[in-house]
Amino acid sequence: MKINKYVEISTLDREAKKDYIDRHSAFLQCESSAKKGEKFKVKVIVGDKYLHPDDFDHYIAWVQLWDGEKMLAQTNFTAGAFGNAPSHTEVDFYVVPNRKMKLTATAFCTKHGLWHSEEQVVELS
Amino acid sequence: MKINKYVEISTLDREAKKDYIDRHSAFLQCESSAKKGEKFKVKVIVGDKYLHPDDFDHYIAWVQLWDGEKMLAQTNFTAGAFGNAPSHTEVDFYVVPNRKMKLTATAFCTKHGLWHSEEQVVELS
Amino acid sequence: MKINKYVEISTLDREAKKDYIDRHSAFLQCESSAKKGEKFKVKVIVGDKYLHPDDFDHYIAWVQLWDGEKMLAQTNFTAGAFGNAPSHTEVDFYVVPNRKMKLTATAFCTKHGLWHSEEQVVELS
Amino acid sequence: MKINKYVEISTLDREAKKDYIDRHSAFLQCESSAKKGEKFKVKVIVGDKYLHPDDFDHYIAWVQLWDGEKMLAQTNFTAGAFGNAPSHTEVDFYVVPNRKMKLTATAFCTKHGLWHSEEQVVELS
Repeated sequence: MKINKYVEISTLDREAKKDYIDRHSAFLQCESSAKKGEKFKVKVIVGDKYLHPDDFDHYIAWVQLWDGEKMLAQTNFTAGAFGNAPSHTEVDFYVVPNRKMKLTATAFCTKHGLWHSEEQVVELS
Repeated sequence: MKINKYVEISTLDREAKKDYIDRHSAFLQCESSAKKGEKFKVKVIVGDKYLHPDDFDHYIAWVQLWDGEKMLAQTNFTAGAFGNAPSHTEVDFYVVPNRKMKLTATAFCTKHGLWHSEEQVVELS
Repeated sequence: MKINKYVEISTLDREAKKDYIDRHSAFLQCESSAKKGEKFKVKVIVGDKYLHPDDFDHYIAWVQLWDGEKMLAQTNFTAGAFGNAPSHTEVDFYVVPNRKMKLTATAFCTKHGLWHSEEQVVELS
Repeated sequence: MKINKYVEISTLDREAKKDYIDRHSAFLQCESSAKKGEKFKVKVIVGDKYLHPDDFDHYIAWVQLWDGEKMLAQTNFTAGAFGNAPSHTEVDFYVVPNRKMKLTATAFCTKHGLWHSEEQVVELS
């Protein structure tokens, strides 16, 4: 099992790989600071500039949200939830932090395996 | 396996049951119409007026989003994701409808079993 | 969301329904008594006399094992795990009971929804 | 997110780490060859010589079975399924291979993160 990571598509030499890497990568969207004990929204979205298929034999089957070595939540999708058309798989998680978080997300494509986001540090204010 | 449902707490005779029923029930929050082929947000939130514990031995372990007899997505939570304090378990799903939907949600409490939301019909415009 | 149940296929009038009902139903295979505090094997198998497709757009996506109102475990399958050919989806769970159990299983077909097994009581010896 | 791996405990210098590493590691038990198109059993078991707790705040929440970069199945456990006593988390998967497999398993501990098994190659006969 290999774990793939996003590479800035501007730095990629081969055009063919840009699409492939971009549309499989998981991205975190959240504030960089949170209030201790209060609900905090974290969007996980797959693909930045490119859409991923939602075909029965090729789709994003699940995403996970991690804080360091602790998994906080996992969402499983049924193929077709995104209308069987190319899309950005997307889910908003809500968590309540008691300490600084080091968030990452993973996405699993049924054809192209496991993809791991960059780490997003969330300080508590 | 019993499937529990929300009962309007205003109609409940016994105070003790109001809290119990309310805080376990899954609620759907979404628009009543969607555009065909476009992303549509559906919030699933557990509990209306009352909060549910997020204790290790008593928490909402997962919620599912259904369209009729088809499950669209399921989110599993690790105990503590909501800070080990009472909260409304919450997740925003995104789906792309190609036809009218009949949405329901289910929530599973590790102590008190399976709870089923009301149905929310979403017409396509 | 409708919950379907197995009906003895010998009692079914219409041939067409026999296949449909049989191949979606979840069955429990286990001993009727267990030793307190010792590991106990419970097989969940989908379909008795008829096989279910493992097509990308039509497969058994998950099965759950319940003890009364408590879910013990859930297995999610990726389409193709059963070779993309008709099969009996199958998984062996292991549980350690501390009291009498009332086991049931559910299976979710991506085309035909949720199916619920008969209850199997397991006494402790 | 760090991915931990089993280290032969006989080679470990510090006694304290032996227990820790052993009881979190996922192990695959299966034949080394399978028949194409026929059902093949794969046991995933967590821990070799040491048992892992099944406490509410510390248990093996899920295991996954992978063939190369493709996840075949994932089983989620509810804390207490193993009687709230130390145990080897265990599940038997069944898969139907159409080609040579490179199986691995992962296990997630709610306190100590993600653990990855050795690879087991399964040739088709």
